[in-house]
Amino acid sequence: MKEYYRKATRPIYLGDIKIGGGAPISIQSMLSVKTSNLPAAQKQLRELQAAGCEIIRFSVMDLDDAQAIKPLKQSCDLPMVADIHFDYKLAIASILNGIDGLRINPGNIGSRQGVESLVAVAKDHKIPIRIGVNSGSLPKDLLSKYGHGKDTMVEAALSHVKILEDLGYHEIKISAKASNLELMLASYRELSKRCDYPLHLGVTEAGTLLSGSIKSAIGIGILLEEGIGDTIRVSLSDDPQKEVWVARQILINLGLRKGLKIVSCPTCGRTRIDLIRLVQKVEAALQEFADRELTIAVMGCAVNGPGEAREADFGIAGGDNEGLIFAHGEIIKKVPEAELLPELLNLIRQA
Amino acid sequence: MKEYYRKATRPIYLGDIKIGGGAPISIQSMLSVKTSNLPAAQKQLRELQAAGCEIIRFSVMDLDDAQAIKPLKQSCDLPMVADIHFDYKLAIASILNGIDGLRINPGNIGSRQGVESLVAVAKDHKIPIRIGVNSGSLPKDLLSKYGHGKDTMVEAALSHVKILEDLGYHEIKISAKASNLELMLASYRELSKRCDYPLHLGVTEAGTLLSGSIKSAIGIGILLEEGIGDTIRVSLSDDPQKEVWVARQILINLGLRKGLKIVSCPTCGRTRIDLIRLVQKVEAALQEFADRELTIAVMGCAVNGPGEAREADFGIAGGDNEGLIFAHGEIIKKVPEAELLPELLNLIRQA
Repeated sequence: MKEYYRKATRPIYLGDIKIGGGAPISIQSMLSVKTSNLPAAQKQLRELQAAGCEIIRFSVMDLDDAQAIKPLKQSCDLPMVADIHFDYKLAIASILNGIDGLRINPGNIGSRQGVESLVAVAKDHKIPIRIGVNSGSLPKDLLSKYGHGKDTMVEAALSHVKILEDLGYHEIKISAKASNLELMLASYRELSKRCDYPLHLGVTEAGTLLSGSIKSAIGIGILLEEGIGDTIRVSLSDDPQKEVWVARQILINLGLRKGLKIVSCPTCGRTRIDLIRLVQKVEAALQEFADRELTIAVMGCAVNGPGEAREADFGIAGGDNEGLIFAHGEIIKKVPEAELLPELLNLIRQA
Repeated sequence: MKEYYRKATRPIYLGDIKIGGGAPISIQSMLSVKTSNLPAAQKQLRELQAAGCEIIRFSVMDLDDAQAIKPLKQSCDLPMVADIHFDYKLAIASILNGIDGLRINPGNIGSRQGVESLVAVAKDHKIPIRIGVNSGSLPKDLLSKYGHGKDTMVEAALSHVKILEDLGYHEIKISAKASNLELMLASYRELSKRCDYPLHLGVTEAGTLLSGSIKSAIGIGILLEEGIGDTIRVSLSDDPQKEVWVARQILINLGLRKGLKIVSCPTCGRTRIDLIRLVQKVEAALQEFADRELTIAVMGCAVNGPGEAREADFGIAGGDNEGLIFAHGEIIKKVPEAELLPELLNLIRQA
């Protein structure tokens, strides 16, 4: 993997997972079912873990949700984060039920005394706290002072931070999500300048699978390329497993994580096979190799295919109802179109 | 739109479209059918133009393709670019048939004399030339000198440029596409430092609709954010109309073009309506407003919805089989779930 400039941040730990301090960038997602609906929550936990999710967040909206943490922790070994609004008692209950991290905003979680009790319990159990600012729910006093922009986002985040710091607590992570990319980029850049807590990157309310992925890829991708960000969540109005898949693609493409890359040409006047369907089938079939550091090329044209995909480990190049199988730029064999995919899979399995 | 740092480049013109020199970033795509197949090519031209494509490229592989240019130009008023390999005569034929731009690499388009004739004709007709370097087809001599990296990409591009400059021709645009993002980023950054010709950005062999969009959004997005790039093409192994849609999303999200933005929350334990399906339907229905500078929010939850989507012009927030319609953060009315979308569309049409 490439040598990357990364802004130095203080590490925190969610269970065994280190965030910040030079640790690999971790992938998070969130349950979309009610936390206390144990069968549904456990099913989604298993699916997310299988998809490569490394940290799971869920809403804790009531005591039932907080009490679900114990059985959820027993059924899955991923670190879990409770997302709590306006009630420090639910945060304390979550810690006592075994949560690994909290996402709360200390400024609106309860009375000063409530916050002090919560921080005392968090200290005792070494539970890090994510301060999560969201462009859609900014404090009114800051909005009227600074307007709807990065200053309000950053001041809101740092005012929550200050409450924890004043209580001598520094196991902090910060997010500053916006649905507007310019605001999201500006807020994270400013936070990265102003403090060294690890940052949790995300674009909020990003949209559907395709449009939300595009938006998240731009926003998260730009910041990671600038060395900003320690853990990421892609938010989509879709199944959270897809959020994990998209997050992986972002990290793999930026050279921040090893994994399978598929390159495939746009079809053109030269293409004589059904390339679009073929590459979709290849992509689906290759999910079993998702963690292998492999580049696989699927090219439409037998003339330029192997050359254009010289960087690929393995590949196929289409012709007239047939195609070439190649490895590291060399042609291995010519096979009928229907055998291209099975031959490719054989080759990868044997490698 | 935001004030953006943009690297200053020399402008060129493809038909009426200015590229570089501070012009808006234009969107290109390429025909995937054989150019000389007139009914298919004309159908695809119409589809691409309707999708918002601003410059059309197609392969010219033989004289039939070159002769198709005249009827294609008669049927569609978009600027057209002929993509030609290894045969300067096809390039001359394309110009004489009315093409607006060429994509050729002068170093491998024919003899010195051939290149001179071609450039003379291009000068006469003021036809700009894109030099297009591709990581998969780099010259062997440079590969053995510099290895497979940005130096070979950049030297290859600049050696083609030098041929045109030596002939006194400067109507040049450059691309340096790679399927590997790190190589793509490094090559364009270096080209942007070393010359002031406008740059055509793209990730080559990017992949399927979703994975290719993610990859293109990262690569093109990072460079545009750095002020690099004057025109873009998203390459997907899919229908070229989708390339145009994805390219638009990249520009709109970066604030480089006006257009419709849809924000929608990831579902969570609070969501009581079928948000995923609803937002997909909203996205499809709103395509008629694609050019309007509007932000539309589709939120799962009636409690936080309007607040979280304060930045949106219009929106809907789901509840229990019903939902709220809001405008600029204010609730307008409460309607049954089935009427959310029609009410939203009414509201936008009246705005």
